Amino acid sequence: MHQEILTFQTRGRGTRNITHEIAEVVTRSGATIGLCHLFIQHTSASLILCENADPDVRSDLEGWLARAVPDGDPRYRHDMEGPDDMPAHIRSILTQMDMTLPVHQGRLALGTWQGIYLYEHRHHGHQRRIVVTVAA
Amino acid sequence: MHQEILTFQTRGRGTRNITHEIAEVVTRSGATIGLCHLFIQHTSASLILCENADPDVRSDLEGWLARAVPDGDPRYRHDMEGPDDMPAHIRSILTQMDMTLPVHQGRLALGTWQGIYLYEHRHHGHQRRIVVTVAA
Amino acid sequence: MHQEILTFQTRGRGTRNITHEIAEVVTRSGATIGLCHLFIQHTSASLILCENADPDVRSDLEGWLARAVPDGDPRYRHDMEGPDDMPAHIRSILTQMDMTLPVHQGRLALGTWQGIYLYEHRHHGHQRRIVVTVAA
Repeated sequence: MHQEILTFQTRGRGTRNITHEIAEVVTRSGATIGLCHLFIQHTSASLILCENADPDVRSDLEGWLARAVPDGDPRYRHDMEGPDDMPAHIRSILTQMDMTLPVHQGRLALGTWQGIYLYEHRHHGHQRRIVVTVAA
Repeated sequence: MHQEILTFQTRGRGTRNITHEIAEVVTRSGATIGLCHLFIQHTSASLILCENADPDVRSDLEGWLARAVPDGDPRYRHDMEGPDDMPAHIRSILTQMDMTLPVHQGRLALGTWQGIYLYEHRHHGHQRRIVVTVAA
Repeated sequence: MHQEILTFQTRGRGTRNITHEIAEVVTRSGATIGLCHLFIQHTSASLILCENADPDVRSDLEGWLARAVPDGDPRYRHDMEGPDDMPAHIRSILTQMDMTLPVHQGRLALGTWQGIYLYEHRHHGHQRRIVVTVAA
């Protein structure tokens, strides 16, 4: 088991490709075959696998989430930190906070068009911690 | 590999914090670094990670799910067990039935505000089985 | 660690029960206690656990997804491959591309009514690759 904690500073709502940083952890682990587990230690940011070629995919996804889980809905009671507080929790649950990926021949076995993204759901930037564990 | 099956009696639709029970399995496993996997053996109850400080977060989440996946929608054909039957399946799929968490220094490496919840989606209580596997 | 790559030819949008094929990988692995991880190497098809007795459950789920994530919504900018292109990405993210299941006494420890399904979200059939890794 190889474990590292990575920290990312986000710049407000949106996605950031972290595939390269995760791939480097796999390389450092020395695993040739195994599993790479990611866990984000927050409830208002999440992890997704998404198409990595056309940025419109991620902006369309953001548009869909913004319509499905509207900011500032008066039916939310939890709004201590603002109109994006409760939506950030729901969005994180609808996507995922844990993710496990296969390692094959020493590398993440992602599909050609798959990228790993950290998804910040708050409007302001935050420092986000991801625990990466490689089991081999 | 350390494996236990936990059983919980739910009291109808809603969430129950099971963080403590899962943490105890990790302690019993003796693992210092590793992964803790949870699996609920049902299709109408699920597992979520959620903010653990303000109960309004979970009631707002319930409100959102109730609006997004309405009970008794006449478009459902599967309603053998009542108006909450099909919504319970959809809610379970939108959240998750499997979850993997990191173990660090002998403990679950959860964020400060993260709790593990069993989410019952049926109106009546049920006995729910969760298989917990710790890999170290 | 035992790892295999399975390939499935889909026949357009809909679900296919792959429980048997995954169970066979577990048998070939020789694991008695452990974890079975599935990963689909695509962003427009996904994996779900679903009730396996009444096919109406899966058609009702499809109906719900079709209403929640409509094909051909003019607000999508990403439509290079047609009206089902962007919805397929959103549907895959709302369900899941990775899944981990417990192995107990040499078998997948699924609940009585749980089946593992490959969910094709594109209208046309595609060849889909699933990496199966068994850790014991």
